[in-house]
Amino acid sequence: MLYNFLAALDKKVGFEQAEAHCDVPCGIYDPHVAQIDALTVVRMIDLITDLEKNFPQAGAARNNAEIRYTLVKEEHAEKCKREIRVIWGDYIKPAHIEKYPQLHILVHKIMSLGSKARQNVDREAAV
Amino acid sequence: MLYNFLAALDKKVGFEQAEAHCDVPCGIYDPHVAQIDALTVVRMIDLITDLEKNFPQAGAARNNAEIRYTLVKEEHAEKCKREIRVIWGDYIKPAHIEKYPQLHILVHKIMSLGSKARQNVDREAAV
Amino acid sequence: MLYNFLAALDKKVGFEQAEAHCDVPCGIYDPHVAQIDALTVVRMIDLITDLEKNFPQAGAARNNAEIRYTLVKEEHAEKCKREIRVIWGDYIKPAHIEKYPQLHILVHKIMSLGSKARQNVDREAAV
Amino acid sequence: MLYNFLAALDKKVGFEQAEAHCDVPCGIYDPHVAQIDALTVVRMIDLITDLEKNFPQAGAARNNAEIRYTLVKEEHAEKCKREIRVIWGDYIKPAHIEKYPQLHILVHKIMSLGSKARQNVDREAAV
Amino acid sequence: MLYNFLAALDKKVGFEQAEAHCDVPCGIYDPHVAQIDALTVVRMIDLITDLEKNFPQAGAARNNAEIRYTLVKEEHAEKCKREIRVIWGDYIKPAHIEKYPQLHILVHKIMSLGSKARQNVDREAAV
Amino acid sequence: MLYNFLAALDKKVGFEQAEAHCDVPCGIYDPHVAQIDALTVVRMIDLITDLEKNFPQAGAARNNAEIRYTLVKEEHAEKCKREIRVIWGDYIKPAHIEKYPQLHILVHKIMSLGSKARQNVDREAAV
Repeated sequence: MLYNFLAALDKKVGFEQAEAHCDVPCGIYDPHVAQIDALTVVRMIDLITDLEKNFPQAGAARNNAEIRYTLVKEEHAEKCKREIRVIWGDYIKPAHIEKYPQLHILVHKIMSLGSKARQNVDREAAV
Repeated sequence: MLYNFLAALDKKVGFEQAEAHCDVPCGIYDPHVAQIDALTVVRMIDLITDLEKNFPQAGAARNNAEIRYTLVKEEHAEKCKREIRVIWGDYIKPAHIEKYPQLHILVHKIMSLGSKARQNVDREAAV
Repeated sequence: MLYNFLAALDKKVGFEQAEAHCDVPCGIYDPHVAQIDALTVVRMIDLITDLEKNFPQAGAARNNAEIRYTLVKEEHAEKCKREIRVIWGDYIKPAHIEKYPQLHILVHKIMSLGSKARQNVDREAAV
Repeated sequence: MLYNFLAALDKKVGFEQAEAHCDVPCGIYDPHVAQIDALTVVRMIDLITDLEKNFPQAGAARNNAEIRYTLVKEEHAEKCKREIRVIWGDYIKPAHIEKYPQLHILVHKIMSLGSKARQNVDREAAV
Repeated sequence: MLYNFLAALDKKVGFEQAEAHCDVPCGIYDPHVAQIDALTVVRMIDLITDLEKNFPQAGAARNNAEIRYTLVKEEHAEKCKREIRVIWGDYIKPAHIEKYPQLHILVHKIMSLGSKARQNVDREAAV
Repeated sequence: MLYNFLAALDKKVGFEQAEAHCDVPCGIYDPHVAQIDALTVVRMIDLITDLEKNFPQAGAARNNAEIRYTLVKEEHAEKCKREIRVIWGDYIKPAHIEKYPQLHILVHKIMSLGSKARQNVDREAAV
């Protein structure tokens, strides 16, 4: 749901070509980057789910892969949440909230899904 | 206002002994850390404001100090906002929002103040 | 030229939907992210160039802005170069080089432009 | 012992309200932050010790939790050691050492305990 | 092969005393640092290979060690690749390429070996 | 004095081929890396001192260079202090202290010099 809620946020707010990577503010906010991070989380969950298929033999190689996938899942879930924070905290102004009173609740839900995707290996939370 | 709004958030939500430093969640959320970061931002603003008094002579030593104070202001404003994001995204649950419907607006305001403290050398925004 | 050379790389290699953010490899390589970083560098150069117009008065506020723009320029030039390194080191295989023998020279040129954009406030190098 | 030795350091040196997070120096040194990091290490050790109770079934979910707990343990042990280094290297002056000649040995012991807490899953070392 | 190819690069280009750690450029490029990172990767692979010998009992202590070794292997493989990128992108100029036309191919090979050392627990790739 | 004191530490303790970059411990401790960081700090101080010679015209290009040199000076002074902390906290054991009772005082002095090199543009402190 993380990826899909991000797509919903994208549609609702109607970002101009932009990215959420800094607090300058540089005027560049792009939910696309958060979406790629969410997709990476999904991809890692898929790799973890297929671990025994791709590494039929238990041992160092399989463990190495699982630890690395989890690291990357963590890193991109964190980056995703950071980007959403910048969009929410810097791009979204009180005027947006007046227009879409549900915006705070939507972003808060996205944050919860980001946490859920980190704490679990649950494709439903991430997609 | 950043520091004071953080104190208001602390009082309103009534955190148990806790800190907002990770998304495990470890159950440790402590707005005190975000408050120390906000105080550091205030301290850097004071050092920047007193720069010419402490470095009466223009040149490398004064510039070195100003660049370093700005770096530290940036770093702690970023850490402050990250900690608030963790408190908001992980600690605050829909049940808190039902009880304090203004909570989203308060946290969003804190985020804006964090950005203002970064973009300016403005003690009012930070204290 | 950084941004334009990145666009040239994008066209030449014909990336599938992908991003250069990790070495898992996750199979997601997307030069679009490096391009957004390059655009951010351009944006910072523009803000630095317009500094005296936007902050007519010398002093703490102008210096604060200039230091922060330079920080963000550094950070995104570094991220841009890191993403290019991942694309070059992980996505591009000997088979690509056989097909486009000039690819190493093109990527090396992009790296030089990334450095030039960091070391100067030169819009030509970055665009 | 890490947490308890930190408390001993706190009592012995008699810090004014302060935090060890930067080398500006900003004059803010607070061993409380290092203590919260030490507590987080303890909390992670407890979560790792209870892993099989909380995740009775071996597999991806349990491994995901164990890897994440270890990551957070590492991160906060490192932060704890960094904060102690700043307190030791910047706050503690030759005058403190004259007054408490055992201070170097105490801080060195704290560093060893921080390493031990990282290298093991040993509650005794961390508490 | 990573370590040995780095030694080959060192011999071929004939670096003056230097290190590849920044893009200032500071004029300090030293492939020795990348070599130490490569040696650390080798050391971690050896520790992972000897894991069951050093931790005969399965459980939390062994897992803690394996996760930490993998983390450090990742971190130093990444640092190694970053240092090589700086040497390649900043130190190596078109004049070097004219003199050693195979240089791009050698560095590209080194990058592939760096990735292989991350993705596997394979001493041959790293030494 | 930072660089020279590091050389003194190197001679006194008699490190085997080693580097201070991780807390695994991997058994690789090498004060050479801290020395290269100290040299980089010296190099940045020289570049800052020669700033007006190399950039005769005040303005964006000179400011860009000064901010970047200060950033790199900060970064490498921090890395230098971190490496010293790892050598002190992990490599140096009570047995070393018994043999060289002045070791704590020497390392503490090195830390102070590292801070002095950050807070000033003072070649004497750094060399």
